[in-house]
Amino acid sequence: MSIAPLPGPIRIAVDAMGGDHGPAITLPAVRAFLAAHPQAEVLLVGKPEALAGAAGIERCSVVPASEVVTMDDPVEVALRRKKDSSMRVAITQLKPAVPDARAAADACVSAGNTGALMAVSRYLLKTLDGIDRPAIATVMPNEHDGHTTVLDLGANVDCTAEHLLQFAVMGSALVAAVEGKEEPSVGLLNIGEEAIKGSETIKRAGELLRAAADGGHLNFHGNVEGNDIFKGTTDLVVCDGFVGNVALKTAEGLAAMLTSIIRQEFTRNWYTKFAALVALPVLKHFKHRVDHRRYNGAALLGLRGLVFKSHGSADAFAFEQALNRAYDAARNRLLDRVHDRILETLQAMPAGDSAEASVAQAA
Amino acid sequence: MSIAPLPGPIRIAVDAMGGDHGPAITLPAVRAFLAAHPQAEVLLVGKPEALAGAAGIERCSVVPASEVVTMDDPVEVALRRKKDSSMRVAITQLKPAVPDARAAADACVSAGNTGALMAVSRYLLKTLDGIDRPAIATVMPNEHDGHTTVLDLGANVDCTAEHLLQFAVMGSALVAAVEGKEEPSVGLLNIGEEAIKGSETIKRAGELLRAAADGGHLNFHGNVEGNDIFKGTTDLVVCDGFVGNVALKTAEGLAAMLTSIIRQEFTRNWYTKFAALVALPVLKHFKHRVDHRRYNGAALLGLRGLVFKSHGSADAFAFEQALNRAYDAARNRLLDRVHDRILETLQAMPAGDSAEASVAQAA
Repeated sequence: MSIAPLPGPIRIAVDAMGGDHGPAITLPAVRAFLAAHPQAEVLLVGKPEALAGAAGIERCSVVPASEVVTMDDPVEVALRRKKDSSMRVAITQLKPAVPDARAAADACVSAGNTGALMAVSRYLLKTLDGIDRPAIATVMPNEHDGHTTVLDLGANVDCTAEHLLQFAVMGSALVAAVEGKEEPSVGLLNIGEEAIKGSETIKRAGELLRAAADGGHLNFHGNVEGNDIFKGTTDLVVCDGFVGNVALKTAEGLAAMLTSIIRQEFTRNWYTKFAALVALPVLKHFKHRVDHRRYNGAALLGLRGLVFKSHGSADAFAFEQALNRAYDAARNRLLDRVHDRILETLQAMPAGDSAEASVAQAA
Repeated sequence: MSIAPLPGPIRIAVDAMGGDHGPAITLPAVRAFLAAHPQAEVLLVGKPEALAGAAGIERCSVVPASEVVTMDDPVEVALRRKKDSSMRVAITQLKPAVPDARAAADACVSAGNTGALMAVSRYLLKTLDGIDRPAIATVMPNEHDGHTTVLDLGANVDCTAEHLLQFAVMGSALVAAVEGKEEPSVGLLNIGEEAIKGSETIKRAGELLRAAADGGHLNFHGNVEGNDIFKGTTDLVVCDGFVGNVALKTAEGLAAMLTSIIRQEFTRNWYTKFAALVALPVLKHFKHRVDHRRYNGAALLGLRGLVFKSHGSADAFAFEQALNRAYDAARNRLLDRVHDRILETLQAMPAGDSAEASVAQAA
């Protein structure tokens, strides 16, 4: 696949009010991001009075929005009541004024609540042709000092095999765009490596993925298990949103527990505190390698626009990483890549196997 | 619930040949276990020539079995071909010669392959009344220095809400028997705390669990997320086997990666090696607190006999922990507890909500 990077400046719309901290975090992150990316421009969306600090930042303009979607707002409130929210106005920047024209922004980043962000994005942008449901993809660190992309992470429960195929195709496009691996390997998350294991949906998904691989449209490795995410067995791991969300939260929970135990052990008495001091450079390096902030920025895939979701509690460093990911995705035309790959894959599938079946399933 | 401990000696049948290492691990584990439990007796099942080392162990007798189920043997081989396997003969010790009599052994422990162990156990022992499917329960460490019991871990994919209720009841009996908490709190693994989230099956399971709690048959906390396993939010976490297996494997994978990174960091150069030396007591204590070997011994629940599964790669210390768990379960009459709780819960449920529905589902 030869898709040239987008020429000229890349414009990112930033929901400056979203997340736990709002402008206190988003402003410094945008400042650092713009300093590192001379070709980037930012549309900072939010209450002008809260964004006065942006006045001095080059290549950064403020787009006013009078309301804010809070972390606890139900989807309905974000969707129907707060029509001038910073989240909604930021996403609107992705809609071209005339069909096929370039929109005001090439990608959008928000640390607002996931449910609201997905619902508003889906409502305003719609899904791409051939995609039934958008999915959420994130990266997790792996043993090779690289990272593994995992999707879906909670946008979809009760997925069909066709949805899992679509996730695989969209995820492949994401890895190609953001990491430059044109044929990323895909693993299907299962509970055993043998094709015979797993639920009916998973078995059928395995068949669809194999068919797509046989047609040269996907680099399908086969089944993988939960531990393969961190082993880095494949570049991409595909699963339904329920399973993906549990895996992500379980990993976060274990990491939090281990961090807390390490801290307890090193602060237990004067000797352990001394040991911590001696081991400080080692512990710092360890912390850097497993720093989850470096992996911030989940992609909402399958929409007619590039939306990235930052963790709600992200600090400026973490939020900047989400901006970086959105920038890379836009620069490398993730949207065109997803579009092309989906069409290619669906057209090549035997009749009834993908497009038709997925229409039938969706009905 | 007042169930008195089983009087007299507790007899454990041990599949001495199972697992990656066989007697090299099981024999020393049995020796240590018997030394620590003066009321215990062990039936060591396997090839007599491989178990010659058991001759000197007190309260330990050898039951001959000429075959061994390997870690790669398909279920069919274990079930239909190797009829004199150490696994099968060990499980057979749980069947009373006359109905309602006490069997040769009160519990059985094997490190053999999970699929074979579950299939042979189910075939020989059958399920308890009111149980559609046996489940596998294990414990994971939590922040309170306690542990959280999780089930199912892979015996069942495609579970119904009724199965999840049965898992909750069986798991509660397990925690009561092995940990002495008579009313353990139960969490339903979901992707959000709000009852509205999750798949249809999960929502319906939430309703069944709430109904059982309202009737006083279960201490239902509500929905929990993946990270709650390690937070120790509830004593018990219930999920279908696919999700549970992914959560367990993901946690194992992350733990393995972090361990490997810590080792790399502390052996990077002469300074970090010096730091490791200084920090050794801290690292050892840390390692002990998160040592997965301490949590070895998964319970196969819902069968007419107590079967415990050790990790295939367990060392003698880990295998001994599985023996300990089997001993505690047998001593505290886990089988009677599961039986009583299941009957009590099912009888109290509104018609069509549990027993009938689960029969309909199974048909």
